[in-house]
Amino acid sequence: MPRLPQVVIIGGGFGGLAAARRLARVPCEVTIVDRHNHHVFQPLLYQVATAGLSPGDIASPIRWILRKQDRLRVLLATVTGIDSAARLVKLDGHDPVPYDYLIVGAGVTHSYFGRDEWSQVAPGLKTLDDALAVRRRLLLAFEEAELERDPARQRFLLTFVIVGGGPTGVELAGALAEIARQALRSEFDAVDPASARIILIEGGPSIMPTFPEGLRASARRALRRLGVEVREGAPVTEIDPGAVTVAGERLEAHTILWAAGVAASPIARDLGPGLDRAGRVIVEADLSVPGHPGVFVVGDLACFTHQTGQPLPGVAQVAKQMGRHASANVARLVAGGKTTPFRYFDPGNMATIGRASAIADFGFLRVSGYLGWLLWLFVHILFLIGFRNRTSVLLQWATAYLTYQRSVRLITRTPGA
Amino acid sequence: MPRLPQVVIIGGGFGGLAAARRLARVPCEVTIVDRHNHHVFQPLLYQVATAGLSPGDIASPIRWILRKQDRLRVLLATVTGIDSAARLVKLDGHDPVPYDYLIVGAGVTHSYFGRDEWSQVAPGLKTLDDALAVRRRLLLAFEEAELERDPARQRFLLTFVIVGGGPTGVELAGALAEIARQALRSEFDAVDPASARIILIEGGPSIMPTFPEGLRASARRALRRLGVEVREGAPVTEIDPGAVTVAGERLEAHTILWAAGVAASPIARDLGPGLDRAGRVIVEADLSVPGHPGVFVVGDLACFTHQTGQPLPGVAQVAKQMGRHASANVARLVAGGKTTPFRYFDPGNMATIGRASAIADFGFLRVSGYLGWLLWLFVHILFLIGFRNRTSVLLQWATAYLTYQRSVRLITRTPGA
Repeated sequence: MPRLPQVVIIGGGFGGLAAARRLARVPCEVTIVDRHNHHVFQPLLYQVATAGLSPGDIASPIRWILRKQDRLRVLLATVTGIDSAARLVKLDGHDPVPYDYLIVGAGVTHSYFGRDEWSQVAPGLKTLDDALAVRRRLLLAFEEAELERDPARQRFLLTFVIVGGGPTGVELAGALAEIARQALRSEFDAVDPASARIILIEGGPSIMPTFPEGLRASARRALRRLGVEVREGAPVTEIDPGAVTVAGERLEAHTILWAAGVAASPIARDLGPGLDRAGRVIVEADLSVPGHPGVFVVGDLACFTHQTGQPLPGVAQVAKQMGRHASANVARLVAGGKTTPFRYFDPGNMATIGRASAIADFGFLRVSGYLGWLLWLFVHILFLIGFRNRTSVLLQWATAYLTYQRSVRLITRTPGA
Repeated sequence: MPRLPQVVIIGGGFGGLAAARRLARVPCEVTIVDRHNHHVFQPLLYQVATAGLSPGDIASPIRWILRKQDRLRVLLATVTGIDSAARLVKLDGHDPVPYDYLIVGAGVTHSYFGRDEWSQVAPGLKTLDDALAVRRRLLLAFEEAELERDPARQRFLLTFVIVGGGPTGVELAGALAEIARQALRSEFDAVDPASARIILIEGGPSIMPTFPEGLRASARRALRRLGVEVREGAPVTEIDPGAVTVAGERLEAHTILWAAGVAASPIARDLGPGLDRAGRVIVEADLSVPGHPGVFVVGDLACFTHQTGQPLPGVAQVAKQMGRHASANVARLVAGGKTTPFRYFDPGNMATIGRASAIADFGFLRVSGYLGWLLWLFVHILFLIGFRNRTSVLLQWATAYLTYQRSVRLITRTPGA
C-alpha cells in the first residue's frame, strides 16, 4: 500500500476540529497539535469567568471529541514554528512533524495595541485559564470589600471597568451586573454588592459594531437596565494598577478587564510575507497561502477578503466553515483534482445581555429581549460539544434562572499562594 | 438591648459549618473565617483529582451555604494566630477579630514525617487546588508518553506510585486504574494507557487499617482486579524526583502521589501546651481547651480520647458531630448553664474501589462489592451540600458508569506556563 498523505492541523479550536472531522472520509493520516488538551466552546467563556458554568461544561478533551476517528493522532505540544521549505511543523521539546498538507487554525491572542504592560493590570479572556483568573479577581473584589472599613476604598473595590464593547465585553458586563445585583445580594454584611459600579468602555462610536443600530440600541437599554454605565466613543489612553484614563478622565477601579483588541498568533510570521496589520495571514480564495504550497489557514488567523472586500469576522461559524472547506480542498488535491474557492454562509449573529435578554441578527430577522434570549439559549445549547455538557449546562442555567444564583463561585488558588 | 456574645469560628470545613448552623438558634453574633471562599466535600476530592467530577460539583461558597442565617458574617482571610489572653483571632493583613467564644476547626495538612522536601515530588490531596494539580499531573503523564519514542521512558511515564493505603490512597489508586484501563483506552496512538503500572504502597501491615480484616481483603481483591499492585508492610525510606525507595527497592515512577500522613494546623500551637504528637489539641470531654477559656476545638484538629481511649478518626462525621456539640455547649454557656461531654455516634465507615465496587462497615453490617458501592453512592449523594451539586454529580456518575468515560479531563494551566 502506498504511503498515505500526511495532514497536520495546528489548533483544536472550531476551525481545527471541523477540519479534522472532515478528513475522516479522506485517505490520509491526520495529526492535530494543540498546546491545550481541550477544545473550548469560546462563546461561553464569559460564563466561566462570571461563575455561571464550570470549565468542564464548556470544554472537552480533543482526544475524546475525536476518539472515534481512525488514522488520527492528537499531540499535546506547543508549535514553535513552521518550516514550509522542509514541510515541517516544529514543536517545543519534541521532534518536528512532517506534513504534505498543513491546515493552520492557531487563532489569535489579546492585543494591547503595543502597550503590553497593560496585560498585567487588565487581563483578557481567551483560554480557560484566563476565565478562571478573571473569576478569581471578580469574586475576590467582593470578598476584600467585605473586609474593608474605609467606605472610599470599599467603593474602589466594587468598581469594575470593562474595556471593549464587542460581544465579549457586553456579555461580561451584563453577567457581572447580574452577579452583583442578584446572586450576591444578601450574602454580605459590611457591603452591599448591588452598589457595585460597572463601566463598559468602547473606544469606537458604538458598542456591538457588527450589529445593526436597532439591536445596538436594544443592547444599550438592556445594559442600562442592569445598571451598567456604557461609554461609547471613549478611547482608553492609559491603564495603571487601579485606574483607567478614558477621554481625559481618570476612573479609579480595582478590577479592569480587557475585551478590546486581538493579535494573530506569532506562528503567522512563518507564513508571510502576506500578513495584514493585525498579523493575520492573507489567504487566497481557496484558503491557501501564497508561496507556501500545501498550507491552508482557517479561522481567526485567516484574513479572507474575497467575499465582501472586508475580512470575515473572527467568530466560530467562520472558523468551522473554513476548517471544513480547507479539508475539502485537501481531499480534492489528494484525489488529483483542483481546489475550489471558499464562500461563507452567514447563519446570523447573536449576543446575550444578562438574564433573559439578548440580541440576534439573522439578516431577514432581527430580535431582541426575551425572544432573542430564547433563541440564543437554543443555538448555544445545540452547538455545545458532547452530550454530557449540554445536559449539565441546561441544568445549571435552569437553576440559575429560577434561583438567581451562580453555582460555581469558587475561588481556586489561595490568595497570596 | 445588651450586646450579644461574639462567637468566632475558624474554618469552613465539616466541623465549622456544623457549628455555624447550630448557632442559628442561639442569641449571639457569629463570624466564620476561612482562607478559602468555599467548603469542600472532602470525601470526593479524589474524584476531582481523577477527572470524574468538576470542582463545582463538590464545593460551594461558604457564604452561599450560610446565606439564610442571620447575625452571621463570613470572612475570607488567613488566621495567623490566636491570642487567648486578649480573646482575639489575628488575621493576615486585616484587623483582629475579638471573641467571647471561639470554635476552632482549622483541620490538618499533609505531613511528610519531617521530610518536607518530598512535598515537591509527591503532592498530597487536601484542597481543590491540590486536586486540580494532581489531575494535571496524571493527565500530562499520558500525554507525554504519547509524544515519547523511547519505550523505557514510556513505561516510566506510565508508572504511578501512591504512598499511603488509607481511604484516600485506595480510592485514588482505584480511580486511576479505571482511567487508564477504560476511559483512555482507545484514544492514544503511540502508547496503550491500559499498560500503565499503578502501585499502592502502605508502610503499615495492611491497607485500610480502620476496617475489619474481611473488608480489607475485599478491597485488596478489588484493587488487584483493576490491576493495581498492592504492597503492604513496605515503608517508604526515600523519595527523589522520579523514584520511590521502598523496603530497599527503588521504584522508578514519573508520578508519585502522597496519601500518607497528616499534621495539625499550626494554629494549634497557640492552644497549647496540651498537644499530642501530631500537633493536635488535646481537648476536654466537653471539647473545650484547658487554660483557654471559651475556646473549643472540633474536627481533625481535636485529639479526643474520652470515649475509647484512642483519638477519634479524622472523618467528616466526627467533625460534624463535634461542631454541633461545641455550639450546643456555647449555647449552654450563653444561657448561663454548664457544658456537657461530647459522645460520638459512629454511623459507619465506607470507601470505594473503582467502578461499582466498595466496602462499607456499619458495625452490625459489613458489605463489599456492588452492594457496598450502591450504599456508598447513596450516602455520598445524600450528604453532598446543595441541590444543584447533587443532581449534577448523579448525572455525571450515571454517564461515567454507562460510558466508562471521565468527563472533565481538562488540563488547565498551560504546560510550562
